[in-house]
Amino acid sequence: MKENMNISRRRLLASAGGAVAWASLGGVAMADDTTTPASKSNPGPVSAEKPLPDYAKWKNADSMIVHSANTIETRRTAFGSSGITPLDRLFVRNNVSPPAASIMDNPGAWQVEVSGVVKPRSFTVDELKTLGLASVAVVMQCSGNGRGYFPHKPSGTQWTVGAAGCVVFTGVPVKAVLAAAGGMAKGMAYMTSTGGETIPAGIDAKTVMVERSVPLSAMEDAILAWEVNGEPLPLAHGGPLRIIVPGYTGVNSIKYIKHLAFTKEQSPANIQQNSYRFSPVGVKGTPAHDSIWEMPPKSWINLPSDPKQPVKAGKVQISGVAMGGMHAAKTVEVSIDGGKSWHAAKFVGPDLGKYAWREFVFQADLKPGTYELASRTTNTKGQKQPKERLENNRGYINNSWLDHAVKITVA
Amino acid sequence: MKENMNISRRRLLASAGGAVAWASLGGVAMADDTTTPASKSNPGPVSAEKPLPDYAKWKNADSMIVHSANTIETRRTAFGSSGITPLDRLFVRNNVSPPAASIMDNPGAWQVEVSGVVKPRSFTVDELKTLGLASVAVVMQCSGNGRGYFPHKPSGTQWTVGAAGCVVFTGVPVKAVLAAAGGMAKGMAYMTSTGGETIPAGIDAKTVMVERSVPLSAMEDAILAWEVNGEPLPLAHGGPLRIIVPGYTGVNSIKYIKHLAFTKEQSPANIQQNSYRFSPVGVKGTPAHDSIWEMPPKSWINLPSDPKQPVKAGKVQISGVAMGGMHAAKTVEVSIDGGKSWHAAKFVGPDLGKYAWREFVFQADLKPGTYELASRTTNTKGQKQPKERLENNRGYINNSWLDHAVKITVA
Repeated sequence: MKENMNISRRRLLASAGGAVAWASLGGVAMADDTTTPASKSNPGPVSAEKPLPDYAKWKNADSMIVHSANTIETRRTAFGSSGITPLDRLFVRNNVSPPAASIMDNPGAWQVEVSGVVKPRSFTVDELKTLGLASVAVVMQCSGNGRGYFPHKPSGTQWTVGAAGCVVFTGVPVKAVLAAAGGMAKGMAYMTSTGGETIPAGIDAKTVMVERSVPLSAMEDAILAWEVNGEPLPLAHGGPLRIIVPGYTGVNSIKYIKHLAFTKEQSPANIQQNSYRFSPVGVKGTPAHDSIWEMPPKSWINLPSDPKQPVKAGKVQISGVAMGGMHAAKTVEVSIDGGKSWHAAKFVGPDLGKYAWREFVFQADLKPGTYELASRTTNTKGQKQPKERLENNRGYINNSWLDHAVKITVA
Repeated sequence: MKENMNISRRRLLASAGGAVAWASLGGVAMADDTTTPASKSNPGPVSAEKPLPDYAKWKNADSMIVHSANTIETRRTAFGSSGITPLDRLFVRNNVSPPAASIMDNPGAWQVEVSGVVKPRSFTVDELKTLGLASVAVVMQCSGNGRGYFPHKPSGTQWTVGAAGCVVFTGVPVKAVLAAAGGMAKGMAYMTSTGGETIPAGIDAKTVMVERSVPLSAMEDAILAWEVNGEPLPLAHGGPLRIIVPGYTGVNSIKYIKHLAFTKEQSPANIQQNSYRFSPVGVKGTPAHDSIWEMPPKSWINLPSDPKQPVKAGKVQISGVAMGGMHAAKTVEVSIDGGKSWHAAKFVGPDLGKYAWREFVFQADLKPGTYELASRTTNTKGQKQPKERLENNRGYINNSWLDHAVKITVA
């Protein structure tokens, strides 16, 4: 074992063989591989035995549930209580296998083409670094986080709570990039980002390409990021360059962005037209259905949550995370009786801004017995986390407090 | 090379042989090993060739300057721009070699004795976790950070800017622990913490023991922490349990705390009585000199700062970090002409609270030439970062903006 290799190098080397290794296991992974659903009563690991893929080998294995090479979840008990998710515990979700690790050889030279502007041009990351500097703490959350709780068992990864994390991205404001490109061309309605994934020959690009459009309003706080939690953005999270669309589900924050376009129409890619649409159960998504864009308020309890680890009777600190979606989380309530009664929880630690989540805690005095712990949050606009999920075909945007409740035993 | 080992395990295994390995290099390291001073004009690595010690082998080697086994500095160009310092880039400074790694085998069982209270008792970490939950983002900074700029070459590590970082610690408020111990006994004036280092037989404990007293006012926001940046607190940073005294220099935040005492007098340990005292140059510290406790306002520029890497002419984002000490940093100014003229810089990213530092940026348009970049901050109480250092024998608390200026070449 070679101990004196630093983590960045480890990431790079680990990634070098990754694309090849996984390609040999079945080529390009398509969106939403199906895995075994987790049961609600036991939201623990569903596939603990799968190894981490090479490009994410540097993750803390004990903290992760590996659903597939492109879908890796954070364990509910592994988030910590600091508000910020450590990078080696942050979930991974790729719609298509990552590009070759060689794109990280010279991150400063990575190019992004900018179009739909007065002066279309390309920028290297090094050039972007001269245009401005911005950091934003965001909840990065997969559109399908909580899918595992839908009773109709939608196809796709059966995430419970761990396809989410709160991290700080640093880069340049999209607005500064737009200004450097002479401003937006007339008549544009969407900001469309294209990922740098390799599209295999012989496949209709539209069926595979990772390209998402969001309304222009989403540009307000968007950045092109080269850093996360103070580290150079690793390949697993979209390095060398990723667009971060705060408040929107993860799929909209395109990794290894190679093209940023201001467009009149939404992307023709399948991932925009038919996937990530809010369609009724049993009905395939179409452009007529709402696109999965903004996130709603949501909270859940992380500790205690391990059904196999009995909690000692007496004082118990019940803690979790609360996000407000497009507006800051304002209040959180906790229930220990499955939602029959509620108590005000208090926020813990620094406020990282409206797109971040906040740690909360409620102190209870628990006698031996079983308890059903739940939390619900309300944001500064008065939007409340609902009791019930909104049913939809693919199991997107589950923010039901009831689904996220956990049973614990106190002894 | 075994790739599928996670970082926590790696930390643990790396630590296992650490104490032995370094002990064989000279036993217990005493305070402030002397290393070669860095020159002001080239604040780069002074000892890049030394390996990371085993207990800190998991650090990002490229980001660190290893002065000695117990003094490891963050490179000026490695802080990132996100406000939070990644754990694998955070500096390390131990007054005495860390305890055996075996103290991390069962962190929940680590005990801290609490005395000077109405009901003296011990608490395990698991018990502390039932008493409360608090997070605080702090600048952890060695008292001697910036010592390398003192012209009289004080003994001790020749730190430049990198014996500092901003991280989020999570634990229980000291106040909650005090309440659980029945409150403070009468007549106490100090909060005194003792580290869990092993004191070799045959040495007068007072000359080596790491025990520090701070005024009771420092208890207000102090916590006993078991987590940092969302991860279990590693041995290198004081795990299983460390007291965090926000706003105070690092030496006051005792690692592997085994005893928390409320006392009438300051600790009799040498590290309290004579070390970490603000004495005139040439005069040894005594209890008559001020103790090194609270930190003053300070800022410095991190990027660009590499004298070997010429900056491209044109727009340049000049960025760095600013801390306010006991009160939040309120404003930062940047100079590109060595302090002849100043420009308002703007803060970047989330505000992590008054004890944290904030990233700042000033956008300049630079023609080819040489520039001397400097920054100075003022906190919410109007306390200003001074031009000159306050001379003192051991080179503590250097917050001179002039000392921290950097020369860059624009081509």
